[in-house]
Amino acid sequence: MQYDFIFHNPTKMYFGKSALENLKEELKHYGQTIMLAYGKGAIKKIGLYDELMKIFKDAGKNVVEFSGIMPNPTAAKVREGIKLVRDNNVDFILAVGGGSTMDCVKAVSMGAANDVDFWEHFYMNYNIPEKMIPYGTVVTMVGTGSEMDGGSVITNEDVKIKTGVVYPNMLPAFSILNPKYTFSLSKFQMVSGICDMMSHIMEQYFSESDEDNVSDDLSEALMKNIIKNAYISVENPEDYNARGNIMWAASLALNTLLSCSKKGDWEVHNIEHQISAYYDVTHGMGLAAISPSYYRHIMDYGLSKFKKFATNVFGVNPDGKTDKEIALEGIDKLEEFFKNIGATTKLSELGVTNAEELDKIAETCFVSESAYKVMTADDIKTILRNAL
Amino acid sequence: MQYDFIFHNPTKMYFGKSALENLKEELKHYGQTIMLAYGKGAIKKIGLYDELMKIFKDAGKNVVEFSGIMPNPTAAKVREGIKLVRDNNVDFILAVGGGSTMDCVKAVSMGAANDVDFWEHFYMNYNIPEKMIPYGTVVTMVGTGSEMDGGSVITNEDVKIKTGVVYPNMLPAFSILNPKYTFSLSKFQMVSGICDMMSHIMEQYFSESDEDNVSDDLSEALMKNIIKNAYISVENPEDYNARGNIMWAASLALNTLLSCSKKGDWEVHNIEHQISAYYDVTHGMGLAAISPSYYRHIMDYGLSKFKKFATNVFGVNPDGKTDKEIALEGIDKLEEFFKNIGATTKLSELGVTNAEELDKIAETCFVSESAYKVMTADDIKTILRNAL
Repeated sequence: MQYDFIFHNPTKMYFGKSALENLKEELKHYGQTIMLAYGKGAIKKIGLYDELMKIFKDAGKNVVEFSGIMPNPTAAKVREGIKLVRDNNVDFILAVGGGSTMDCVKAVSMGAANDVDFWEHFYMNYNIPEKMIPYGTVVTMVGTGSEMDGGSVITNEDVKIKTGVVYPNMLPAFSILNPKYTFSLSKFQMVSGICDMMSHIMEQYFSESDEDNVSDDLSEALMKNIIKNAYISVENPEDYNARGNIMWAASLALNTLLSCSKKGDWEVHNIEHQISAYYDVTHGMGLAAISPSYYRHIMDYGLSKFKKFATNVFGVNPDGKTDKEIALEGIDKLEEFFKNIGATTKLSELGVTNAEELDKIAETCFVSESAYKVMTADDIKTILRNAL
Repeated sequence: MQYDFIFHNPTKMYFGKSALENLKEELKHYGQTIMLAYGKGAIKKIGLYDELMKIFKDAGKNVVEFSGIMPNPTAAKVREGIKLVRDNNVDFILAVGGGSTMDCVKAVSMGAANDVDFWEHFYMNYNIPEKMIPYGTVVTMVGTGSEMDGGSVITNEDVKIKTGVVYPNMLPAFSILNPKYTFSLSKFQMVSGICDMMSHIMEQYFSESDEDNVSDDLSEALMKNIIKNAYISVENPEDYNARGNIMWAASLALNTLLSCSKKGDWEVHNIEHQISAYYDVTHGMGLAAISPSYYRHIMDYGLSKFKKFATNVFGVNPDGKTDKEIALEGIDKLEEFFKNIGATTKLSELGVTNAEELDKIAETCFVSESAYKVMTADDIKTILRNAL
């Protein structure tokens, strides 16, 4: 553990078949009016909406509904939520869904509690929120890890900017995780979530420190667990234990445990976000398409880590091979894994084809200064072309 | 993740060479009077006492000293601390040292804040503390994990009982970990700490669920990290990176991360505590002596886990061997590891020799109901004899 770090994550995690039973007790800590935030109604199909309404009623709470939160939630949607909170004096927000719903609720929580323009103050300028509307989550999709972190990604359609912020004091008060809620996800959604969580781990792992450290060892253990359980989860959506492993691994992947004493390199996410500004690409699939190309491009600058990844995560046999051959075989195995579970590993298959636009994307990407190789626009152009 | 669980650990962890720089800011959240709790003066030898006094002065705090906390802290010492807190209206306690100091401070915190007899109310009867005197820690010895949990072990000499409690709401507000503080520990202390943290991990790992689970995978990663860095740490006490890995692994070993979806089996700790009631045995060394004998005794009842341990943690080659042979070889390797780093693996070497007393110990041990094999007194007698 070469570099100094702070680890602090007070979110209370309730996990399992009985997790929702804790909601009523948790709600006692908050005022009378609850805002129920969700997406396009999937929570009604799985019966969760009715269960929640019963719990609110039993707890004697008033409910304000904030529904229709879309994938890649917009600033306009956030403003709608802020108005709802203020108009109804909402005391607590319950975000029920996946990363989009949770990220939108974080923005609403910051925006409603502080007398500022939420977009300018928190997303364009990084001002730590002084106050928040407390919120909790019930997770029905896996991958983003938003249920145990202070991150939020919002898209402002007016200015065509999709950007993420992380405020360590914006964590959920509690999160409720029941693997059963994921049984009805489409294969596409599940696979996309798995690619997202793998990317979260790799973006912490493939960076300094390269000294032996606990975080890298935990990262390898989690990646191996995810790979093993991804195959089972995709094959049999109702395998509770496999889905449970994936769900818990997703939370641990981004709760800052794996970034202790690590610099982190979030360039794959940076590139994917910028592609999203031009194309309607599902986040996890975009990451799966960029990762192999990005890592092949930077491999030489962090060769020892890529070699470790190949042998420790994918069991590449190093006998008679050069370090570079070993490292490359590891990235090949990663791409093969993405393909095997049904992810798209080519940008062209995601509809990204316009070479001129790729150049614009390359020139406007946010660049990670803590990467093994700090990107130039030319680097990104090459990476994008190799990912087509 | 087969079994339901709650994970909640809000302690703020400051790690590294600059960790102490955060103390002054943390103290701002608390009142005027700080109690500095420490042991027999090791913190003066490493210059930490003077650094702390300067920080208290700069922060404008009054300081009350509570020193001389002994290994296996006594109920009498706790009462002394409670009186000091009450007589001086202490607002915050800073525990500086290892597990003994931290455990004693937890008891003082509970005892001083609640108008009850601390021993009867919290240690003989498990009443969740309603209030506490807030406290933080500065860690100078590794192993107990007390810096990131709500556990406290106290010895009542009057009634000859040594007992531990765990209150999830009794966590430190923050903990400060600088691996350099461990450089001057004796080899005996360091090795004892390493055996303690290995035991913490094994006592969670060697229990159900035996379904594939994230916790077991993280446990294996941590054990491998500890084994690797233990050899370096013991060989070269000033290897910062190795000591850092050991220090962080110790915190993660017992902060309940590894017990998510696990039943846990704390019988090795139970037996060691009971031995301590009769003999002056250093905790970690006692665990190192009991563990191999205990695990050989119960191996057949959880064979698949012991086989996994052998191959995944100690790299035992399974070719041409029965499951039992593989499992046994893993436990042999564990014992060999303890010996190699300088631990005592025989109770007789720790002065435990009286066979009649061993029987009394076996008959009075607390029995873990969640173990692979629930112990009878005869089981424990056999285990103790095999550990002589």
